[in-house]
Amino acid sequence: MIIILKENANTRQVENLTNWLKQRGFDLHMSVGSTQSLIGLIGDTSKLDIDLLTSLDVVDTVRRIQEPYKSANRKFHPADTVIDVAGKAKIGGGNFMMIAGPCSVETHDQIISVAQSVKASGAHVLRGGAFKPRTSPYSFQGLHGKGIDLLEEAREASGLPIITEIMDINHLPLFENVDIIQVGARNMQNFELLKELGQTKKPILLKRGLANTIEELLMSAEYIMAGGNENVSLCERAIRTVETAPRNTLDLSAIPVLHKHTHLPVVIDPSHATGINELVAPMALAAVAAGADGLIIEVHNDPPHALCDGKQSLTPEQFDDLAKKIRAILPYGFRKEEWA
Amino acid sequence: MIIILKENANTRQVENLTNWLKQRGFDLHMSVGSTQSLIGLIGDTSKLDIDLLTSLDVVDTVRRIQEPYKSANRKFHPADTVIDVAGKAKIGGGNFMMIAGPCSVETHDQIISVAQSVKASGAHVLRGGAFKPRTSPYSFQGLHGKGIDLLEEAREASGLPIITEIMDINHLPLFENVDIIQVGARNMQNFELLKELGQTKKPILLKRGLANTIEELLMSAEYIMAGGNENVSLCERAIRTVETAPRNTLDLSAIPVLHKHTHLPVVIDPSHATGINELVAPMALAAVAAGADGLIIEVHNDPPHALCDGKQSLTPEQFDDLAKKIRAILPYGFRKEEWA
Amino acid sequence: MIIILKENANTRQVENLTNWLKQRGFDLHMSVGSTQSLIGLIGDTSKLDIDLLTSLDVVDTVRRIQEPYKSANRKFHPADTVIDVAGKAKIGGGNFMMIAGPCSVETHDQIISVAQSVKASGAHVLRGGAFKPRTSPYSFQGLHGKGIDLLEEAREASGLPIITEIMDINHLPLFENVDIIQVGARNMQNFELLKELGQTKKPILLKRGLANTIEELLMSAEYIMAGGNENVSLCERAIRTVETAPRNTLDLSAIPVLHKHTHLPVVIDPSHATGINELVAPMALAAVAAGADGLIIEVHNDPPHALCDGKQSLTPEQFDDLAKKIRAILPYGFRKEEWA
Amino acid sequence: MIIILKENANTRQVENLTNWLKQRGFDLHMSVGSTQSLIGLIGDTSKLDIDLLTSLDVVDTVRRIQEPYKSANRKFHPADTVIDVAGKAKIGGGNFMMIAGPCSVETHDQIISVAQSVKASGAHVLRGGAFKPRTSPYSFQGLHGKGIDLLEEAREASGLPIITEIMDINHLPLFENVDIIQVGARNMQNFELLKELGQTKKPILLKRGLANTIEELLMSAEYIMAGGNENVSLCERAIRTVETAPRNTLDLSAIPVLHKHTHLPVVIDPSHATGINELVAPMALAAVAAGADGLIIEVHNDPPHALCDGKQSLTPEQFDDLAKKIRAILPYGFRKEEWA
Repeated sequence: MIIILKENANTRQVENLTNWLKQRGFDLHMSVGSTQSLIGLIGDTSKLDIDLLTSLDVVDTVRRIQEPYKSANRKFHPADTVIDVAGKAKIGGGNFMMIAGPCSVETHDQIISVAQSVKASGAHVLRGGAFKPRTSPYSFQGLHGKGIDLLEEAREASGLPIITEIMDINHLPLFENVDIIQVGARNMQNFELLKELGQTKKPILLKRGLANTIEELLMSAEYIMAGGNENVSLCERAIRTVETAPRNTLDLSAIPVLHKHTHLPVVIDPSHATGINELVAPMALAAVAAGADGLIIEVHNDPPHALCDGKQSLTPEQFDDLAKKIRAILPYGFRKEEWA
Repeated sequence: MIIILKENANTRQVENLTNWLKQRGFDLHMSVGSTQSLIGLIGDTSKLDIDLLTSLDVVDTVRRIQEPYKSANRKFHPADTVIDVAGKAKIGGGNFMMIAGPCSVETHDQIISVAQSVKASGAHVLRGGAFKPRTSPYSFQGLHGKGIDLLEEAREASGLPIITEIMDINHLPLFENVDIIQVGARNMQNFELLKELGQTKKPILLKRGLANTIEELLMSAEYIMAGGNENVSLCERAIRTVETAPRNTLDLSAIPVLHKHTHLPVVIDPSHATGINELVAPMALAAVAAGADGLIIEVHNDPPHALCDGKQSLTPEQFDDLAKKIRAILPYGFRKEEWA
Repeated sequence: MIIILKENANTRQVENLTNWLKQRGFDLHMSVGSTQSLIGLIGDTSKLDIDLLTSLDVVDTVRRIQEPYKSANRKFHPADTVIDVAGKAKIGGGNFMMIAGPCSVETHDQIISVAQSVKASGAHVLRGGAFKPRTSPYSFQGLHGKGIDLLEEAREASGLPIITEIMDINHLPLFENVDIIQVGARNMQNFELLKELGQTKKPILLKRGLANTIEELLMSAEYIMAGGNENVSLCERAIRTVETAPRNTLDLSAIPVLHKHTHLPVVIDPSHATGINELVAPMALAAVAAGADGLIIEVHNDPPHALCDGKQSLTPEQFDDLAKKIRAILPYGFRKEEWA
Repeated sequence: MIIILKENANTRQVENLTNWLKQRGFDLHMSVGSTQSLIGLIGDTSKLDIDLLTSLDVVDTVRRIQEPYKSANRKFHPADTVIDVAGKAKIGGGNFMMIAGPCSVETHDQIISVAQSVKASGAHVLRGGAFKPRTSPYSFQGLHGKGIDLLEEAREASGLPIITEIMDINHLPLFENVDIIQVGARNMQNFELLKELGQTKKPILLKRGLANTIEELLMSAEYIMAGGNENVSLCERAIRTVETAPRNTLDLSAIPVLHKHTHLPVVIDPSHATGINELVAPMALAAVAAGADGLIIEVHNDPPHALCDGKQSLTPEQFDDLAKKIRAILPYGFRKEEWA
């Protein structure tokens, strides 16, 4: 960490600062210029409050050299994290995980049917929303506890472990038998929720917020890991930009950036990212080519006379076709192990 | 609402759709073109699920004409909402409210001292953080319940009503004696929290999220109002953009845009928006000129030897000077009543 | 196109508008609601000035249904455009083109050496900057005419056609023997330059601006094509977003979105997009997987003692390795022909 | 400038680097840490190529402490620049300039009428577009030379100096009698055009690009000033963000940020920024409150039966009313002179 002092900073205040830093065990390197001086800080700065330092009267700016996250940092944990899901599926360290299922759990027949078909196509985990974050209070909000019951029935019928989204700490008891708990984009910085999830041992899938940086995503993972739960996967699901042709802009460069900085697995959600059925397959293949550890894809069955087709959902047939293509391209994807 | 059908949409599915809409009480206007046809929907569409419609097989796109919010909509509630805070302060309908105080409550002496000085300068409400949302789990997270106790002591000493931020539904009992409950930018779409606050009668200050549109802010207000609590003020505190010279980009055009679309009061937070002490005064004056109903400003006392100066906080002297300027410019600000 | 009229629009002005539209040959469908009315416009609206319509007193909003571009529109030109480069290389319609070379042309030896090595690795076209757009007037601005001379020498030595960027109409005579003219991101909406390039028959590579939408990119292509030059390739090179870990955010969803809406070839520039050597290979492979028609990659030789390494440039060895991987993954990339 | 070296950087290459820097006249301060080392650079770094340094093998990152612009920098030129326009109007250093007129010059009668009415309302300069940058090649592109002729006639009739936009270097001779040359947002980084304008002595109004930072705007001003023309005003006209209720997001914090970093005058364009008539007045007042040196506002006369009303344009009556309000609020605006 480098602390750049203000021009003509008050000498006594600078002394107060350097003493305070030395007491906290840092080695200091002073670099005194004709107008401006710097302090180089050597030591573990990840737990130092950068806002506090920045707010000091004598400080112009503070620049981190090291990342502010520790548990999630590949520097301190070089080997890939491998997460085991209920003994039935694995992600990370070369294990590719395909998650598929409907946006919302609707009925018993729907979820059983989708579960069985995505299983047959090669999916490893079943997704389905029971609690749905909706912009409007007047939109369908999900089946809640009943939705989780139906997911458990679908697990029994298909053998697939299940993942579903949590929106409130108080619902945690309902998630006792859920295999992976998803934290949605809007809750990425719901820090109280993250802390609570840190107390469980459940695998967590943490989605990146719509305007959050990759570093902030890692800091949110750090909230969960700091509580003792290291089973965190990170999910890129697109950020808001000036482009509106697809719903949001899928940031696939997040895959190699995350792989460089963290040992946690990286999952891509091409369905919510693009919001358009036709873009799911090309973006899924691109994610695999860039080295993603997993995909989460919306698949919806299509009973006759159904009003709702899920514009971003694939039909079971489309998913089956895509799953084959994914398996075909998987051996040719980028392998981070080849980085020098 | 206009539903644009796909080219060559299946006739029977279109019939299913029009019947379904008629059953819901809408008047329909069909406009049949040579390649593409439209359905115009007349009626109250605010409770119609636009995602559901968009996902239909025969639908190309859906365009709203009316806004998707109702309780917050000025069309249905032309008069400004005036919120009364504990019988001691008012905001909206021509009542300007000045909120001031430190970012975090730190000690008894600090908060009492700041409360008395901002009161003397003309502030109407005391702010102070007890629960602090921090990007890093290793940063100071606030004094929690103890912080709220200190705020209540400062209220007694100064006579100012108090505002502080809630981060978790489960903390609600601690807020029983708080006068205004603030919802921070990161929780703007924590829908479970919003629903719960809709069950109280407390004045709420709802901050806009870092990447949220004005319409989404109004939809979040709608979550609170749908529960029965209409005492909602909206707070613009800057959005993330490509510019990084100030911390974020303060969107002052949100003031007239909100005043046009909603009857709820609009508050500007120039301190968190800019993150820089020197920018607070010009942005505060600009907000008043654009017609803001209130300001929330960080003020921190400055005891000798204190390490922390709050780079974005004003000193009590700076705030006193700014408060005078604000009172001077207030009669010359834009008056929305003059819109034809 | 749908014109949504204002509530209580003046009847006579509406009549003026409808007459004016009929005179221009449009069929109109009126949809009269209790408060708001619509006009549906049937006919070729691509040459109608949407800003003019929007500015009318009686008009609330105007929504396009059809795209505002015509020459670039796949609807009117379903078959892929195939561009032939000097009889030596092709792009589009299944022809994949690899462009490689240094950011700037520096010396005779450098450009000859890079040209020969990328040729050996399988590149089809040599890139090299002679005119360099630089944020600072104090940065190196390129060798100008001398740089183009060196590129021509490298073409002779290697047999590879050459591409280089134009920054000013007045330089056009210098580009007479250049095989592909590149328009950089900062000039995407330099409309006078685009018009002039429309008068040539040269293949053009048009880069997307940093904050421009895909539709605006197509409108800029339309400027060139409207002049008679249909040899336009489109290049995605990342947009500015809130993320700063890579230099910009590469929008790979632009590949299928462009393929859906236009017949023009799509090239991806992973080098400028990410600005980081290590991200080039995973993003290049992802682009191929998503169906890109070409790649443009920075490659720099690495003579001993050279100060400048080109942090985003690959060494010839790295490029050779990547080119092999690209050839391996190419058969498994998404094929737009499979869209229903 | 601080150069942060890579962990375990090659000692010989570091030596090459430090020698190279010393030869260029810099004083160096080395700060050697256990894993990472820094070099502090003392001297005039504004003409050092930061990209070159960043690309060095041994360099991790480079951080500027000083701004990369010099002529535009207030540090080296503390007094406000005052620009004189044809001896008839001034901007900067306490001189407030009101620019008004139509988006496009349309007819002789229109421009004369608007010129006379905005003059009567207190405008100091007449605006009017002759060359119009339009997204679509099929939209009206302006009257070109004829438009400039009409502006000159309006100048004669009203006595107001005139401003109009240039889009191409080759049109420069047509601008010989124009009083202020405007560079539009899309040409902010048309560096060849900027260089050419640096060779003239004309006052320039340089608009910020849609996705450009304040620092980049200053670097573009530097291009003009480096050529010898110091008569540059800077214009904020909104940036693209996630918000779409107004056309773009007007960044009024640019006013105090620019005033802090540069001595050049700052003009705000609330008309193009918001694109909505009703937002122009509140944003104009806010700009004045924040300390803007000038405003540029669209005003269009409104002959009976005219189709086009200019949704973002004010009528002469609205402008007259706004001009009064601006004069009333001007004495209460933020005065940068009060910064300590």
